[in-house]
Amino acid sequence: MDMISEHVCHGGMQRFYRHESEAIGLPMRFSIFIPPQAANGPLPALFYLAGLTCTEETFAIKAGAQQHAAREGIILIAPDTSPRGAGIENETASWDFGEGAGFYLDATQEPWSQHYRMESYIHELRKLAIDELPVDPKRIGIFGHSMGGHGALTLALRRPDLFRSVSAFAPIAAPVRCPWGQKAFNGYLGPDKESWLQHDASALMSVQDEAPFPYGILIDQGLADKFLEEQLYPGVFEDACRAAGQPLELRRHAGYDHGYYFISSFIGDHLTFHSRQLREIT
Amino acid sequence: MDMISEHVCHGGMQRFYRHESEAIGLPMRFSIFIPPQAANGPLPALFYLAGLTCTEETFAIKAGAQQHAAREGIILIAPDTSPRGAGIENETASWDFGEGAGFYLDATQEPWSQHYRMESYIHELRKLAIDELPVDPKRIGIFGHSMGGHGALTLALRRPDLFRSVSAFAPIAAPVRCPWGQKAFNGYLGPDKESWLQHDASALMSVQDEAPFPYGILIDQGLADKFLEEQLYPGVFEDACRAAGQPLELRRHAGYDHGYYFISSFIGDHLTFHSRQLREIT
Repeated sequence: MDMISEHVCHGGMQRFYRHESEAIGLPMRFSIFIPPQAANGPLPALFYLAGLTCTEETFAIKAGAQQHAAREGIILIAPDTSPRGAGIENETASWDFGEGAGFYLDATQEPWSQHYRMESYIHELRKLAIDELPVDPKRIGIFGHSMGGHGALTLALRRPDLFRSVSAFAPIAAPVRCPWGQKAFNGYLGPDKESWLQHDASALMSVQDEAPFPYGILIDQGLADKFLEEQLYPGVFEDACRAAGQPLELRRHAGYDHGYYFISSFIGDHLTFHSRQLREIT
Repeated sequence: MDMISEHVCHGGMQRFYRHESEAIGLPMRFSIFIPPQAANGPLPALFYLAGLTCTEETFAIKAGAQQHAAREGIILIAPDTSPRGAGIENETASWDFGEGAGFYLDATQEPWSQHYRMESYIHELRKLAIDELPVDPKRIGIFGHSMGGHGALTLALRRPDLFRSVSAFAPIAAPVRCPWGQKAFNGYLGPDKESWLQHDASALMSVQDEAPFPYGILIDQGLADKFLEEQLYPGVFEDACRAAGQPLELRRHAGYDHGYYFISSFIGDHLTFHSRQLREIT
């Protein structure tokens, strides 16, 4: 872990790191915020997965989460959204596939399968955080926005034993049904749609026998979000939660759009939501 | 005023505008945040002047001020930091002179004097805000960062009847003494150093007979700010305030640097500081 920069912020430290990732096989960047309470021992940690075109800097700069993390005593960890510079033809040709669009899964299709392994990468980063930071391994949650909301929901549903709380802003909640998801899954996973279901939050929820997150899941969705109708499908996830007995608070906000002015308006609620759950874990 | 975009944020509206400026003679951009309380009548307003290389977007994206403006019921107005595209040779050659570095004064030297008239522009924008927005003209304050801290202090000291409260983050507090200020004043105002003193916060304060801001002035300064020693000179301004009987709260913060992680850590205090003063004006 090479530190690129650090900045005191709300009494804690906002840091940016670069490291050689084993899962990706390339250098990767991530940001962390360590609140002042870290001086007194291990703390809960919260992964934030960003959306299409974002980097490890976006959340740290735009979301305004540090003040709430400093209040709650939670470490924030935000990875980049894909490998960079993998040397694949057309890697940067689309804003919604390839660089900046890793979709938090391990690609199985050539040429993407060698480096585009973002699910394994998040778990590598989880282990790195446990080893190198004052993170309590039993108190780790995950949240994200849009593509990163998809990532948070799917990674949490695939490993609820490792991610103990989950929330999302405007997630791609049923990617098998939408253009973004279909393009990504075709490219990274190939035409077999059975494999897609393992990375679709609504499909994963629909096969649960009991609520994987009994405390509940929190989702905020702006009703002026221009991607809502074609790409996001929160209602499909809502139906799947109802069928599985999974408590869900899906808050629909009139007027709010898809960007960080929306996220920053409700980020404090998400930090409180995770903090309460993670602190109850014994 | 052409609206470029708008975003609901913390129950209010973050908007970006473009307009033809008479003072500048070119199109200019600015951002405003209108809190939800504006529905009930005129509100106090607060101008934020940004630093070198910034635009009208920087403050809206990075400072996290909207939540506090929504709490206090204050309108935020953030202009760009200079004219753009004036067609002057070498206009973009330096990051600390020309584009992005207007220094909130009216240039007197060719070729800058035609368009680089940022002091007149701020007053044009003040009038525009009074005419077009629910702004109470008697309750307008000003603050800023670095070059914009210089701008806030000097514009307030030059017109304390119009800007009724003032604060700053890491201001260039004695520009006649520092390389940034000397380069800007030489270029925009020419070699006559008498003219420089009209745009130097410490010099302006040193000639006051009585405190122009009896409620006080608030300045936050990070002690890990890499520009502190060579460029900022808050101690010179502190001495001038003491001599003039001007109450000043100059808070020196260990560990904090010059950027928006520092600003966002203390932005709430500044909104509270201005709100209290502006609400007391009858």
